Amino acid sequence: MDLAEVGAIAGGGVRRLALTDEDRRGRDLFARWCREAGCTVRYDAVGNVFARRAGRDGALPPVVTGSHLDTQPNGGRFDGAYGVMAGLEVVRALNDAGIETEAPIEVVAWTNEEGTRFAPSMMGSMAFAGLMSLDAVLGSRDAQGLAFGDELARIGYRGEGLGGRPIGAYFEAHIEQGPVLEETNHTIGVVTGGQGQCWYDLELAGQAAHAGSTPMDRRRDALLGAARVVEAVNRIGTAFPPGGVATVGHLSVSPDSRNVIPGRVSMSIEIRHPDDGRRAAMDAAVREAVADAAARGSLEATLHEVLDQPAAPFDADCVAAVREGARAEGLAYLEMVSGAAHDAIAISRIAPTAMVFVPCAGGVSHNEAESATPADLAAGCRVLARAMLARAGSAVRSGAAR
Amino acid sequence: MDLAEVGAIAGGGVRRLALTDEDRRGRDLFARWCREAGCTVRYDAVGNVFARRAGRDGALPPVVTGSHLDTQPNGGRFDGAYGVMAGLEVVRALNDAGIETEAPIEVVAWTNEEGTRFAPSMMGSMAFAGLMSLDAVLGSRDAQGLAFGDELARIGYRGEGLGGRPIGAYFEAHIEQGPVLEETNHTIGVVTGGQGQCWYDLELAGQAAHAGSTPMDRRRDALLGAARVVEAVNRIGTAFPPGGVATVGHLSVSPDSRNVIPGRVSMSIEIRHPDDGRRAAMDAAVREAVADAAARGSLEATLHEVLDQPAAPFDADCVAAVREGARAEGLAYLEMVSGAAHDAIAISRIAPTAMVFVPCAGGVSHNEAESATPADLAAGCRVLARAMLARAGSAVRSGAAR
Repeated sequence: MDLAEVGAIAGGGVRRLALTDEDRRGRDLFARWCREAGCTVRYDAVGNVFARRAGRDGALPPVVTGSHLDTQPNGGRFDGAYGVMAGLEVVRALNDAGIETEAPIEVVAWTNEEGTRFAPSMMGSMAFAGLMSLDAVLGSRDAQGLAFGDELARIGYRGEGLGGRPIGAYFEAHIEQGPVLEETNHTIGVVTGGQGQCWYDLELAGQAAHAGSTPMDRRRDALLGAARVVEAVNRIGTAFPPGGVATVGHLSVSPDSRNVIPGRVSMSIEIRHPDDGRRAAMDAAVREAVADAAARGSLEATLHEVLDQPAAPFDADCVAAVREGARAEGLAYLEMVSGAAHDAIAISRIAPTAMVFVPCAGGVSHNEAESATPADLAAGCRVLARAMLARAGSAVRSGAAR
Repeated sequence: MDLAEVGAIAGGGVRRLALTDEDRRGRDLFARWCREAGCTVRYDAVGNVFARRAGRDGALPPVVTGSHLDTQPNGGRFDGAYGVMAGLEVVRALNDAGIETEAPIEVVAWTNEEGTRFAPSMMGSMAFAGLMSLDAVLGSRDAQGLAFGDELARIGYRGEGLGGRPIGAYFEAHIEQGPVLEETNHTIGVVTGGQGQCWYDLELAGQAAHAGSTPMDRRRDALLGAARVVEAVNRIGTAFPPGGVATVGHLSVSPDSRNVIPGRVSMSIEIRHPDDGRRAAMDAAVREAVADAAARGSLEATLHEVLDQPAAPFDADCVAAVREGARAEGLAYLEMVSGAAHDAIAISRIAPTAMVFVPCAGGVSHNEAESATPADLAAGCRVLARAMLARAGSAVRSGAAR
C-alpha cells in the first residue's frame, strides 16, 4: 500500500508508466527497502533491478522471484507490484527467521512489462532472456518520440550487462487477473504454464451505399460480415475446452454513418490455448470462418497474423515446488494455465520457472478497481517462500533467529 | 456541367456546402440563367430561391419543380443539382416551343437539403411546409458556431416571407441514388412515395475483462451481443418485402483494445418501409431482437428511438402524370418508393407531389464518383415536362415557336 502511493490516481488505482518519474520513485523505494533488508542492489542495461540476498554458496545460480513495478495508465495496486513486494517479503521473512539459503536469492523488478508506454510488453524480461535485442529495447520510442534508452538514463537506471548468467529457478507471484480462483473458492493457483496465442488483424471490404435506397439483396455490408466473424470467433473459443479462448476486442466501421451501409470494417481477432496443436485447429477454424463470412457477404477479406506465440509449459519440478508449498500451508489450490502474459513466460525460455496465482476480486484487472485480500496475498507469499526454499536449500543459522 | 464547376473538387465531384461562397455562386448562376429564360426570381426568409415563369392566369397556384443546389462535403454533380437544372430546362424548352401554360410554373432551389453543414436536412423545404419554425432554421449553427441566419444574410439570400401560399403541384426530378433502375434496365422511376423510417441508438453494456484469463463461459461480451443484433437487423430488413430495409451503419466498441473483452458497444439501427403498419411490425421485431441479444449475453440494453418519420405516399394524380409522361415518351419505367429523403417528401405534406427518378451508375451517390448518362438525364427532363404540362394546362402561343 505504501508503494501504491507512488503514482496514486483518484479512482484508488495507480498510474506508474515505465521510465516516468513515478517509475523512478517506485524503483527508488523498492531499492531502499531491499538494501534495508540486507540485499545488494544492481540494475542491468535495460533497467531490470536485481536485489540479491547472499547464499552460503555464492557460486550457485540464484533462485529468483519478482515481477514488474510499471502499471497500466489506469492500473491497479496489485498487477506486478504484488509479485515484487512478495519477493521482498520472502527476504524479510528469511531474515526474521534467521534462515540462510545455499543458493543466493534475488528479487527482480523487470522493466516495462505492461508495454503501454513503450511497445512491446515484457521488454525487460524478454531482453534478459535474449528474446529481444538490446538495441531494439533502447531504440523503442513512446508516443512523444522519446527513446527508451534516453528515458532509462534520465531516471538513473541505465546499468551494465544483460542476462547471460544462469538462473537456478524463477518463481513469480501474481494476482490471477481472472475470476476462476474466486469463483471456485481456491486460494492458490498453481500455474502450469502460459497459453500460446495468435493475434490477427482482419479487414473486410464491401460496398458503402445508401441505407434507404439499396435493397437488402443488393448489399455488400462489411459490418454484417464482421458480425458473423464475431459470432464464429466466440463459437471457436467455446469449442476448444479446456483453456481455449477467442476474442474480438477491436472493431471499427467505415464510413460509420447512421444512414450508410458499412463499406469497410477493421477488426482484431485473438485466440489462445495452452496446447499448440489445439491452437492450430482453432487457427484453421478462424480462417475458415473468415472465408465463409466473406463468401456469404460478397466481401473481400484480408487476414493478417500479427503474433504467433507458442505455449510456454512451466518446469515440472518448479510447478511441483509450488504445489507442495500450497499443500504444506493447507491451502486450497487449483492447477491452471495463465491466460495473461507475464515476465515468467519470457524467463521460462531460459530457466526452470513456475508461478503462484492469488485471487483478485471479480477477476478485475488493468482497472483501478483491482483488489485482493490481505489474507490471500499473505498466503501467496508463504507458498512462494516454501517453493523458493525448496529450490535454494536452507538451514536455520544458529542463534540468528529473533 | 457548368454548374458543377462551382465548388468542383479534385476527384471530379463537387463541394458546395449550404450558405458558403460556393453555394452563393451556384445560386447566382442559377438565378442568372432563370432571368435569361424570362423568369422573375425571388427568395424567401430561409433562402429558398423561386424562379417564376408567368402563366395565362396568374391567380392559379403555380406548378412547381426543383430540388437543391447544396452538396455533401465530397458530393457528386447530380444529387440535387439535376432536379434544379431539369426545371430550368423545362422552362427553356417551353420557351423554345412557344408553349404558354395556364398556371404559372416555378423552379425552386431549396436551401440546405443535405444537412451536412447545418442540421437537420431538408431545412428549406421543411420550413416552407411549416414542418420547422423560422427561428429554428435561422438559429441553427454550424460546427464553427456560425448561425444559419447570419450566413444566409452574408451570401445575400435572406429574403421575405415563408410558405403559406398554395402550390398546384410539385414535381422533383432526381437521380435514384440506388441500383434498381440500372440493374433492371428501366430509364424512369415513377416514385409513388417516400418510405417511413425509425432511427434508434442502442447501448449494450457488459463487462470489460482480460481476453486471456476470462473463460468463455464467464464473459459478458458487449460486442458479441452487438453482432447478434446486427445479424437480426439484417434478417428483419429481408423479412419485410417489398420495400423493407434495415441497417446498422454506426458501431463503436469500448475499450476497443485487442486484448480486452468489449464491455460496451454504441450502435445505430434504422428501419425503413413504405407501409407504416409493416414498419410497426419491423419496430417490434427490432425490440424483440435487442431484448433477446441482451438476455443471451447477460447485457444491459438501452434502446432510444431518435426518429419516427411516417411514410409519405405521393398524390395519385401527380404519380399518374409522371407515369403517363413516361408512357408517352415510350420509356421503360418502374414504379418505386424513394428510399432516400428528398425535399419532395416535405412538400408532399402540403401539396400534391410526385417524383421522377433516373438511373445513376452503380447506384452510387453521396460520392464524387456519382454519374448519370446524358440520355437518361434528358429522358427525365422530358417526363418532368409532360407531367408539369399535364398539371399546368398549356397551349402553343400562336407564332411564338422558333
